[in-house]
Amino acid sequence: MSKSNVHRVDVHFGDCDPAGIVFFPNFSRWMDEASLAFFKACGVPPWRELLATRGIVGTPVLEIHTRFHKAASYGETIEIQTKIESWAAKTFVHRHRVRRGGDLLCEGTEVRAFVMRDPADAARLRAMPVPEDIKALCT
Amino acid sequence: MSKSNVHRVDVHFGDCDPAGIVFFPNFSRWMDEASLAFFKACGVPPWRELLATRGIVGTPVLEIHTRFHKAASYGETIEIQTKIESWAAKTFVHRHRVRRGGDLLCEGTEVRAFVMRDPADAARLRAMPVPEDIKALCT
Amino acid sequence: MSKSNVHRVDVHFGDCDPAGIVFFPNFSRWMDEASLAFFKACGVPPWRELLATRGIVGTPVLEIHTRFHKAASYGETIEIQTKIESWAAKTFVHRHRVRRGGDLLCEGTEVRAFVMRDPADAARLRAMPVPEDIKALCT
Amino acid sequence: MSKSNVHRVDVHFGDCDPAGIVFFPNFSRWMDEASLAFFKACGVPPWRELLATRGIVGTPVLEIHTRFHKAASYGETIEIQTKIESWAAKTFVHRHRVRRGGDLLCEGTEVRAFVMRDPADAARLRAMPVPEDIKALCT
Repeated sequence: MSKSNVHRVDVHFGDCDPAGIVFFPNFSRWMDEASLAFFKACGVPPWRELLATRGIVGTPVLEIHTRFHKAASYGETIEIQTKIESWAAKTFVHRHRVRRGGDLLCEGTEVRAFVMRDPADAARLRAMPVPEDIKALCT
Repeated sequence: MSKSNVHRVDVHFGDCDPAGIVFFPNFSRWMDEASLAFFKACGVPPWRELLATRGIVGTPVLEIHTRFHKAASYGETIEIQTKIESWAAKTFVHRHRVRRGGDLLCEGTEVRAFVMRDPADAARLRAMPVPEDIKALCT
Repeated sequence: MSKSNVHRVDVHFGDCDPAGIVFFPNFSRWMDEASLAFFKACGVPPWRELLATRGIVGTPVLEIHTRFHKAASYGETIEIQTKIESWAAKTFVHRHRVRRGGDLLCEGTEVRAFVMRDPADAARLRAMPVPEDIKALCT
Repeated sequence: MSKSNVHRVDVHFGDCDPAGIVFFPNFSRWMDEASLAFFKACGVPPWRELLATRGIVGTPVLEIHTRFHKAASYGETIEIQTKIESWAAKTFVHRHRVRRGGDLLCEGTEVRAFVMRDPADAARLRAMPVPEDIKALCT
């Protein structure tokens, strides 16, 4: 059984392009928000705190794949349903479904890795094993 | 033989997130810029003009797929090499490779459709056959 | 007596810069959202509808002036209190106060004009008298 | 005599809103880029480096004031001319003029402070005296 969270987004004028519809990179931005909202809903502390206490910088994306079905525009509210589809040693796969009421607007996956600051060079980030306690919170 | 174009982007402070690296949706934004730069380099007029003269609104994305290999940060210049990998009746596939010097930072495809305003309802967009003259310019 | 509206914004990771705080142009973006939310709360239809029915494109800014007192970061919720401070023949002045709990983060004014498409050249925008019915709704 | 720098920006589709013109917070974003470009042109090292070597985080804005005269749209190139208008003990005032060819699109000032991490609490930023060597480079 997998946990799932719904992140709500109000679409604003400035999110839309001259065609009057959401400029598509904003969906990636909102899926990123939805990822964080998912972890928060599961009880995982903010990265800021995990960076200070455990050196965990966050979960940058390694790969994104999104299919766009319908456009959205300003004045509308959309909902992003997010879950974790699978876990690997250092990575996991998010699935996001973006809906406006009954309409599926777009859906996609993100492959993300847990990363920490490289102890030898704080300017570098490196992948780390998925923290078991965080995985447990999200499953 | 396929045409190819290189779009250069200077990465700025505001493009980066608290981890100090480019916030990934910006890569989608820059690939969108690179798509337009590709058409321009091929001699295709701006959408604004094609909307007025032929009702062509643009080429919204139907699907994106991006793999991220290395991070970038502000003060760096990146180059996006863009071509059209294949054409279908109403859609085509872009391939973008994003490099910083010799490093491949990320690469991805976009499936895009040519769309026009629906004559029966100007608020709706609908896919249209790929215009042969535009295809010829880009090949 | 002037109407006032509160627009709530959740600050997200991607809104913040490498210093870990909100990248300041986002405050202008959120004040723009707050302006629209103000009109909506006053019962003014969306610009999309007013464009179709009355040729009103919206209320672009002519001037902004913002003072930043405290920083905000992701994971926080901020509230923007918006009102109209004064009306002129074709323009009006918004005042926005951005708070996080009891803290005033920033405050500013926007001078905005009502604009319509130029009947002689649809690509051009021109200022128009403040619509009396809209003014009445907002006062 | 004050130094001055010109920062060039290509306006892209995604920078524009449903009215077909640049969404105004982007001008603040570009002025921020222009500020950094100014310091770079004057020979000041990137903040990333100054943070590591001297604890200087950057020059966040305390106040912005912008007047918008003409709109810009995608496909256009704009130029931002930036200088420092005055210096105070811990702050300075930037003036930016944004032009497209001979047209002045907008102009504005930014009051900025030099800030460092608070030695007692690295999560806090505090204003610091303007570094004399940086001031000398910029004058």
